[in-house]
Amino acid sequence: MRIGVLGTGMVGQVLAAKLAGTGHEVTVGTRDPAATLARQEPDGYGNPPFSAWHAQHPDVKVGSFADAASHGELVVNATAGAASLDALRLAGEANLHGKVLVDLANALDFSKGMPPSLLVANTDSLGERLQRAFPDVKVVKSLNTMNALLMADPGQLADGDHTVFVCGDDDEAKAQVTQLLTEAFGWRDVIDLGDLSAARATEMVLPIWLRLMGTLRTPAFNFKVVR
Amino acid sequence: MRIGVLGTGMVGQVLAAKLAGTGHEVTVGTRDPAATLARQEPDGYGNPPFSAWHAQHPDVKVGSFADAASHGELVVNATAGAASLDALRLAGEANLHGKVLVDLANALDFSKGMPPSLLVANTDSLGERLQRAFPDVKVVKSLNTMNALLMADPGQLADGDHTVFVCGDDDEAKAQVTQLLTEAFGWRDVIDLGDLSAARATEMVLPIWLRLMGTLRTPAFNFKVVR
Repeated sequence: MRIGVLGTGMVGQVLAAKLAGTGHEVTVGTRDPAATLARQEPDGYGNPPFSAWHAQHPDVKVGSFADAASHGELVVNATAGAASLDALRLAGEANLHGKVLVDLANALDFSKGMPPSLLVANTDSLGERLQRAFPDVKVVKSLNTMNALLMADPGQLADGDHTVFVCGDDDEAKAQVTQLLTEAFGWRDVIDLGDLSAARATEMVLPIWLRLMGTLRTPAFNFKVVR
Repeated sequence: MRIGVLGTGMVGQVLAAKLAGTGHEVTVGTRDPAATLARQEPDGYGNPPFSAWHAQHPDVKVGSFADAASHGELVVNATAGAASLDALRLAGEANLHGKVLVDLANALDFSKGMPPSLLVANTDSLGERLQRAFPDVKVVKSLNTMNALLMADPGQLADGDHTVFVCGDDDEAKAQVTQLLTEAFGWRDVIDLGDLSAARATEMVLPIWLRLMGTLRTPAFNFKVVR
């Protein structure tokens, strides 16, 4: 499938590499492709610059947000949550119209100290905000409750015996995303939480995820719904 | 140990029964003990009235919130979250002073429809509100992320292979609660999330818990932190 990945950070890189490696045609999109490719210093988390990653993944095309959205039959939002609405506006309604958008962003608010709180919570969610801004896009919220390495390769932890959630208002879109989760990424336990208002629930998992990362001193953990 | 349990609903009943059954001296507290004992009709969830439960548990004493708090060396807040601050005021600062308060309440807001949202979230929590109102009480937030039957008997699901969280500002109080969790209830995986501000994180688990109950059509599930 042709897939557009919005965002060239750690999450975008890991997902783009995995999707390209499983036979999909991937274009990653960024605000300013020339600047992203020219950057030589590590990012704020000490990761190598995008250009170093791209040199190892020449099969992944790089373009603007609009290029990536236009390329994809399915589009993945891997931008930082606080910037997602802007990124989608740059991607353009015409390039997103009618498509499935997998939203795995979390709108973290670092302005009130660490650990961050959420910019939107409880009675609304980032996923719903994106859906309201782009009513003709089929938003599916998923993969926002674990580390990027586990998103793309759940089998590296406990042989994949843990859980990922999906929610959204379009059943066909959720089925398509669920197929990608199981076939491309190897997820075995996908729980459908219902309509997109369940994005409130999965986005509100972030605070305990962040606390656990602090306590366990690793991002290599995930939740399993034991039943 | 002498334990006071505030609240005579399902949660209070299950915990009081388990604590009494493991050798503790338990008094449950309610706003109006005479009215609670006189009620003959089932509660709003169809559970038998308190008096029927109490007839089967004559070893558990029944009193006012103040009686239960005064009796307990350790006090459990099993009241509905929206009513917890009132219940603690009725219990009385003098009866709570210096004691450990295990807060397992969730402040659910049913006024905006189903599933409920939270009355306090994201940048504050019920646990912290209770701590601020009673600075000389040692609040430990725990057990608020699963169904009452699992709180008191985790072994009935997957042989107890799932997780409970504790947080609070007093390490000795957390150690005492952790001992109760493991020895009285049988918890095997207790994760200490740090100070009481982590109550924001565990209380924000409720929305996904409620969604999962709707999806799985049972409250008999819990989260395991796989690591």
